[in-house]
Amino acid sequence: MTKIERSIVIDRPVDEVWESSELLLKVKEPIEPEYGRLRDGLVLFTYLHIAADEPLTRALVESGIAAVAYETVEDANGRLPLLAPMSEIAGKIATQAGAFMLEKPLGGRGILLGGVPGVPPANVMIIGGGAVGMHAAFIAIGMEADVFVYDTNIDRLRELDIAFGGRASTVFSSVLSIEEKLPQMDLVIGAVLVPGAKAPRLIRREMLRRMRPGSVLVDIAIDQGGCFEDSRPTTHDDPVYQVHNSLFYCVANMPGAVPHTSTYALTNVTLPYALELANRGWREAMARDKALALGLNTYDGQITYGPVAQAHDLTYVKVEEVLG
Amino acid sequence: MTKIERSIVIDRPVDEVWESSELLLKVKEPIEPEYGRLRDGLVLFTYLHIAADEPLTRALVESGIAAVAYETVEDANGRLPLLAPMSEIAGKIATQAGAFMLEKPLGGRGILLGGVPGVPPANVMIIGGGAVGMHAAFIAIGMEADVFVYDTNIDRLRELDIAFGGRASTVFSSVLSIEEKLPQMDLVIGAVLVPGAKAPRLIRREMLRRMRPGSVLVDIAIDQGGCFEDSRPTTHDDPVYQVHNSLFYCVANMPGAVPHTSTYALTNVTLPYALELANRGWREAMARDKALALGLNTYDGQITYGPVAQAHDLTYVKVEEVLG
Amino acid sequence: MTKIERSIVIDRPVDEVWESSELLLKVKEPIEPEYGRLRDGLVLFTYLHIAADEPLTRALVESGIAAVAYETVEDANGRLPLLAPMSEIAGKIATQAGAFMLEKPLGGRGILLGGVPGVPPANVMIIGGGAVGMHAAFIAIGMEADVFVYDTNIDRLRELDIAFGGRASTVFSSVLSIEEKLPQMDLVIGAVLVPGAKAPRLIRREMLRRMRPGSVLVDIAIDQGGCFEDSRPTTHDDPVYQVHNSLFYCVANMPGAVPHTSTYALTNVTLPYALELANRGWREAMARDKALALGLNTYDGQITYGPVAQAHDLTYVKVEEVLG
Amino acid sequence: MTKIERSIVIDRPVDEVWESSELLLKVKEPIEPEYGRLRDGLVLFTYLHIAADEPLTRALVESGIAAVAYETVEDANGRLPLLAPMSEIAGKIATQAGAFMLEKPLGGRGILLGGVPGVPPANVMIIGGGAVGMHAAFIAIGMEADVFVYDTNIDRLRELDIAFGGRASTVFSSVLSIEEKLPQMDLVIGAVLVPGAKAPRLIRREMLRRMRPGSVLVDIAIDQGGCFEDSRPTTHDDPVYQVHNSLFYCVANMPGAVPHTSTYALTNVTLPYALELANRGWREAMARDKALALGLNTYDGQITYGPVAQAHDLTYVKVEEVLG
Amino acid sequence: MTKIERSIVIDRPVDEVWESSELLLKVKEPIEPEYGRLRDGLVLFTYLHIAADEPLTRALVESGIAAVAYETVEDANGRLPLLAPMSEIAGKIATQAGAFMLEKPLGGRGILLGGVPGVPPANVMIIGGGAVGMHAAFIAIGMEADVFVYDTNIDRLRELDIAFGGRASTVFSSVLSIEEKLPQMDLVIGAVLVPGAKAPRLIRREMLRRMRPGSVLVDIAIDQGGCFEDSRPTTHDDPVYQVHNSLFYCVANMPGAVPHTSTYALTNVTLPYALELANRGWREAMARDKALALGLNTYDGQITYGPVAQAHDLTYVKVEEVLG
Amino acid sequence: MTKIERSIVIDRPVDEVWESSELLLKVKEPIEPEYGRLRDGLVLFTYLHIAADEPLTRALVESGIAAVAYETVEDANGRLPLLAPMSEIAGKIATQAGAFMLEKPLGGRGILLGGVPGVPPANVMIIGGGAVGMHAAFIAIGMEADVFVYDTNIDRLRELDIAFGGRASTVFSSVLSIEEKLPQMDLVIGAVLVPGAKAPRLIRREMLRRMRPGSVLVDIAIDQGGCFEDSRPTTHDDPVYQVHNSLFYCVANMPGAVPHTSTYALTNVTLPYALELANRGWREAMARDKALALGLNTYDGQITYGPVAQAHDLTYVKVEEVLG
Repeated sequence: MTKIERSIVIDRPVDEVWESSELLLKVKEPIEPEYGRLRDGLVLFTYLHIAADEPLTRALVESGIAAVAYETVEDANGRLPLLAPMSEIAGKIATQAGAFMLEKPLGGRGILLGGVPGVPPANVMIIGGGAVGMHAAFIAIGMEADVFVYDTNIDRLRELDIAFGGRASTVFSSVLSIEEKLPQMDLVIGAVLVPGAKAPRLIRREMLRRMRPGSVLVDIAIDQGGCFEDSRPTTHDDPVYQVHNSLFYCVANMPGAVPHTSTYALTNVTLPYALELANRGWREAMARDKALALGLNTYDGQITYGPVAQAHDLTYVKVEEVLG
Repeated sequence: MTKIERSIVIDRPVDEVWESSELLLKVKEPIEPEYGRLRDGLVLFTYLHIAADEPLTRALVESGIAAVAYETVEDANGRLPLLAPMSEIAGKIATQAGAFMLEKPLGGRGILLGGVPGVPPANVMIIGGGAVGMHAAFIAIGMEADVFVYDTNIDRLRELDIAFGGRASTVFSSVLSIEEKLPQMDLVIGAVLVPGAKAPRLIRREMLRRMRPGSVLVDIAIDQGGCFEDSRPTTHDDPVYQVHNSLFYCVANMPGAVPHTSTYALTNVTLPYALELANRGWREAMARDKALALGLNTYDGQITYGPVAQAHDLTYVKVEEVLG
Repeated sequence: MTKIERSIVIDRPVDEVWESSELLLKVKEPIEPEYGRLRDGLVLFTYLHIAADEPLTRALVESGIAAVAYETVEDANGRLPLLAPMSEIAGKIATQAGAFMLEKPLGGRGILLGGVPGVPPANVMIIGGGAVGMHAAFIAIGMEADVFVYDTNIDRLRELDIAFGGRASTVFSSVLSIEEKLPQMDLVIGAVLVPGAKAPRLIRREMLRRMRPGSVLVDIAIDQGGCFEDSRPTTHDDPVYQVHNSLFYCVANMPGAVPHTSTYALTNVTLPYALELANRGWREAMARDKALALGLNTYDGQITYGPVAQAHDLTYVKVEEVLG
Repeated sequence: MTKIERSIVIDRPVDEVWESSELLLKVKEPIEPEYGRLRDGLVLFTYLHIAADEPLTRALVESGIAAVAYETVEDANGRLPLLAPMSEIAGKIATQAGAFMLEKPLGGRGILLGGVPGVPPANVMIIGGGAVGMHAAFIAIGMEADVFVYDTNIDRLRELDIAFGGRASTVFSSVLSIEEKLPQMDLVIGAVLVPGAKAPRLIRREMLRRMRPGSVLVDIAIDQGGCFEDSRPTTHDDPVYQVHNSLFYCVANMPGAVPHTSTYALTNVTLPYALELANRGWREAMARDKALALGLNTYDGQITYGPVAQAHDLTYVKVEEVLG
Repeated sequence: MTKIERSIVIDRPVDEVWESSELLLKVKEPIEPEYGRLRDGLVLFTYLHIAADEPLTRALVESGIAAVAYETVEDANGRLPLLAPMSEIAGKIATQAGAFMLEKPLGGRGILLGGVPGVPPANVMIIGGGAVGMHAAFIAIGMEADVFVYDTNIDRLRELDIAFGGRASTVFSSVLSIEEKLPQMDLVIGAVLVPGAKAPRLIRREMLRRMRPGSVLVDIAIDQGGCFEDSRPTTHDDPVYQVHNSLFYCVANMPGAVPHTSTYALTNVTLPYALELANRGWREAMARDKALALGLNTYDGQITYGPVAQAHDLTYVKVEEVLG
Repeated sequence: MTKIERSIVIDRPVDEVWESSELLLKVKEPIEPEYGRLRDGLVLFTYLHIAADEPLTRALVESGIAAVAYETVEDANGRLPLLAPMSEIAGKIATQAGAFMLEKPLGGRGILLGGVPGVPPANVMIIGGGAVGMHAAFIAIGMEADVFVYDTNIDRLRELDIAFGGRASTVFSSVLSIEEKLPQMDLVIGAVLVPGAKAPRLIRREMLRRMRPGSVLVDIAIDQGGCFEDSRPTTHDDPVYQVHNSLFYCVANMPGAVPHTSTYALTNVTLPYALELANRGWREAMARDKALALGLNTYDGQITYGPVAQAHDLTYVKVEEVLG
């Protein structure tokens, strides 16, 4: 039994936890009032997103803390294992949010996603057939919509074709193939996530003109800048806005809407890393696992992750040097 | 080609339509400003719900109009064919609304209905296995929740068991069997509709105490008074309220949220009756079809439907007498 | 063990069988060379279709034979139990023939019914959701096409909706709803069979103009006159012809293409009646079973089935009188 | 927007296109009247199949053209990405053709592939569980046949077992296991494609004797010589011939029957390569992508693909040398 | 809340319950030590099966008790609603017992019902497609066997065909059709229950000779005498015996093996009747519900159910006379 | 055609086979009476398991035989291809045995795995989502139980999530997540197999106290020591024992119960290796295939597999040296 498991059950004052811990796990990045608690000798393992957060970057560097970011842990295939469960959640949320926004009082077309006997269901276009799009499609299929999944990777479409078992169509994605079907769609879900890059702009403004009034566009890529030209981040308090006659749902951090599910999903993937950090110490753990080593963002007053340094125009040392 | 089909395409001033028509179809009951348009010689075919609407009852009677109500057309088996599609729609909306309300920002538990790999889905209890409950269940199954459908009719549970194909459990409904599972539920959908009667109160206030915080209860029977003790009608603008730690979603007239789908669904079932009324005249049409005859609520200054007369303590003549 | 079962295994000269039998089962009507074998005292149980066949009618009447026709056996609900399996077979054949005719060398659009990963499947419209249309739909769904089933009976659409489990859309059938979708269809299957009446003309010539070039129309109702305006019977040797840019497949007697399956299917439904005829004698058997009695077309020199008499402008005696 | 996309919309005289283009995409190989248009400086990207076509080989070499063949593009795992979609199409066509040939008028057993209630369906044996066989199986399962898929790769059978979900049986393929089941089969589909090699002869002549009269054998491997001993190529005009009592359907180039679907499917996989050729120039594109480089068959008067040179007993230069 | 519900929670001495109750529910018939507790004025509602139990018949008659038997409650369609759930349970048990008996150490063929990738599954024949056979089939399909369901009712086969969705074959049942397939079967389940009659003998001894060694026959009809010639009742302690090379599993009262499930299933169907008996008194309850009235077997010293009287050669009074 | 295929059909005296063969295939290890037949010059290919069998080890070494063990053939990924089919079989047996043991007469809870309409099914926990657990889950899903599959590999859970299609829940496995659900389980299947290592103890004794009386635990890992603390090997004659109120089913060598299926499954995977051994000779075959080389356990009087030597504290030579 490791140290970590013990800390789940013991309920201690927050300050004491910060002071007495060697390794601290969080879900979100430290907020300003917590900056004072950062300290040399502590290992922090959490979402950081500091490339876009200068104050936090500075606080981490100045404290000397070893800060390990969930979002930069990256395996040999370029996959981001600690982001993956969030994608699955976002995909499923996207469809259920889209279904709800299609209701008239929410501003949508007033069409029921799954139809009823005698009245055909809504048409759903999902652009991007990765884990995000696949989960969005599973829910749309389950809600009995007519579903079309677009992707440019034919091998991926083959896998989806088997997984869908004839219940959804797969379409090779191109500007032409999207434009052709767009006017018949009720719900469009943008699920094109290019790891570490801005999402491409797949639906341009002029294409919206030919869409059905009250059609809904959900942009799951909004946290990477969005994959529709007119996407801009919204919040759960005010989730949608209108462009031409269509409704855009671009809530940032969609998985945040289901913290119960997200926390379990996140813990499932972080726990094995956390156990390694706790049982072996961070140096040995990172020496044994390159994916984890890529998570180190700051240590001993230095930035150890290139893109963060570049974002703030600072110097950095390679993690390999730190590990010796 | 009948008169009705023509009126779909011709766009005439409203007043002229009221004046020149012999038969008028609407979706909702006449509102006050329309009372002046009611007149002798016109046949009105629409939802009326006048048992609870004295002013409209009086207006109809005074005008001498032949008012045929969708909601009282009733076949030999006691089924209400013009209400049925609304039930199907309400059932499907109930699950998608429930899924959405379970999101934290909406006030719910913050649990994703369908879960993700490694995190089990939400538990959904559907009380009532008629068309409403069955459609609610189909969507919940499709969204990958764990679904339990309760009913007291074992023959109906057998039919559902085949339709579900092992993907949902059927449970014989009783106070005991509901109470036993309730504490593990995330979403409870009340779908017990007893035609022409107040819905029974299946979840009492004291049972709520043992429910999960943030659990959601959707009451589809709200238009008949609701089937949970604490149900009271809400609107799409303000759809939920909290009782103990649970969220109640009791929006009245749920199908109104998807007018595009509802209008087609309603037309599918009303059109055959409307064609009979138009082609044969209402007297002959009703003489040939008892179900339709039960729809006549007022004619020639008299109430012709018993329960309406009773509700307002008025006298009535039997429809058979009217038809001669 | 009855007499019938024995005759399955014994292989005797045809003449001897005609002469020595009391009850004779066939699949098709007697052809001219067999007229001489018809005789008083024999009960013949087979398809007859004599309303449209005067020579055979005369031969049967003159011989004094008791001729029982499969196609006029009719139960209390107006169902024709000895025609039903042929409908099921025709429905399944219709889709596989349609798929084949869509191939370019056969004259069709050159589209693969089920598509492949990245290329969406063909769109299939099935008009009529009875047993015929349902079986056509099952095969089309299984071949992974996008399927839309049209019917005017909303209760039937509800049954189909459950049977399809979200894998096909049900649509309330009207001139408008058919016309709206027709231009997007690759394959249209006409499956509207009104027992004992000419099939309605659902696709009129002018509607063809807007169909896709190379689209295929299969008319299963061709034996009742066809349900498309341009349908005329074809044969397996020359199964299709072109109207505008569409291909019509109107092979008469489609189940005749699969005699192995058809014979078993027919025997399954005729055998119980045949056993009754054999074991009880035809008089008692018909006295006990009204459906079977309606099968008697001629006896003792008289026509005993009204519509046959009317078709040939002859008199007839009621079967009840014959049975005494 | 690349040059290629533009050429889709612009409609110019054929000669002008040949003359002014730098890169030309086709579906089929150049025919004799086109030989004069081949020229130095042009890059041709199409199916060539020149190992068996000496005149075209000579024309290409003499013209100096850079000819890139779809069929020899080959990735590191030996897969042929530009042939794959044709395999998927062929697999699906095989089953629908087999179903049709089983009809009596086409020469088959007269059995309906899917059976009807009370009459079991046909038995289908599919030999080879690759993409071809799997797609053939999906359609056969969907048409409700009893399906047995044979393969010698147990890992592949495990994948299929999951994809079939219990709806088809997987069988380890051997001479014994095939012979044992063969006498009960109605339809046998040969789907054993060994890339770059003649297909093995799996059904020998003497095995045919014990097959059901009217059984159908479809040989998808016919373009590689066929996988039944008695297979020889046929055409859509005259697709079948009889051996013993069985029917052989061995149409060469099955995907050619559905050009609408095939063209889209082909374009989906060729487009990414074409864009690379257009945007980077063929030299750089091939230098970056070994799979594409293997597609170069002739350049600057020389053969650059070994097997083509061997087939015609000519010398060749390695593509690596050409690329420098 | 009725008296019955109270008695569930109160735990009183058995004697006191017998003495103080007006209505007593049991699951099994009274055993000899309980005969003394039977008394005038008590209503007993339980399984009785007294046609085959003279001592209990006498004890009931002599006591004057009103004995209502679950097994003779019978609705207008001849269905036995209080036996139905036991049939469903027996059907599901039959398949899981059959699967287990097919294991070698139990005496069976040593074949795994569902097979594994590369090894086909077992073949299962289910004779009788009622609720019993259908549930047996669902489990066999779910366990991935190849399943053939036989019935003589073509309409029932049609319903099953839809419910099975192509995953099992339906076969019209006859001596011939059974004999033809029998030699290929691994497991045969006899599920032919003719209400109130001895089950027909479908598998005769000589047919066993051609069955596979180690094949298993499960006879669900054993409580009505069995539907195989060689069936004789066995017990869970010694469930099987061998005839020729086949194994017979004929455990009487199969649902007794799962009392947890059976008790709930039984209560679900008896409770509504019990509530009527408790709330209205048995006389009024029976006067209002003919099905329940048929359950009365003895009252006031007289036999009130014909077949019981006939079995023991005693006189009886009609229940209508008793009710007045 | 190889020598092996011939030996399948020829039936010769056992002694002669041993004497005259060069290569001998068996299913089980040689038993004592066979030790005398082992000889220099013979290649034996079978299950050996000699790490735990000193007498057989000695007999093999002394004989000079080349003994190749199925269980130590191991591919580059550490997978054991000749054990894999046994795992699949064991997984499926586990569920059907568990279902049977849940019957009351066998000692279980008396609950029907699949439930019936109105009575929910049993809850099944499967710990370990590899091939074993997946196949156990497929059968449990097919039998209509509520199924929860636990694994610590999130990527594997993702694959299962697709394969299950929403019909079972996947759960990230931890002591906490198992303990939380355990009290609601009726059947627990331990399917955690760590190749070459003792299985971890997942259910400890104190956890049993909170389980349902009559719950059943099936331990598929029993051949590797079992994955529950209280597991100890049992036999088919006496398969279960009780701990607290739960039933343990820990039959060793479960696949041995279905020799018909197991033999085919084993042959499917051993045959390709056997053909290589026969056609190339063992030396060349092993030189070409490292996986097969790892199968060599003894040769020419020496042990050639490390773990066997370690188990008996003997020296060994590396297989590479033997092959030269």
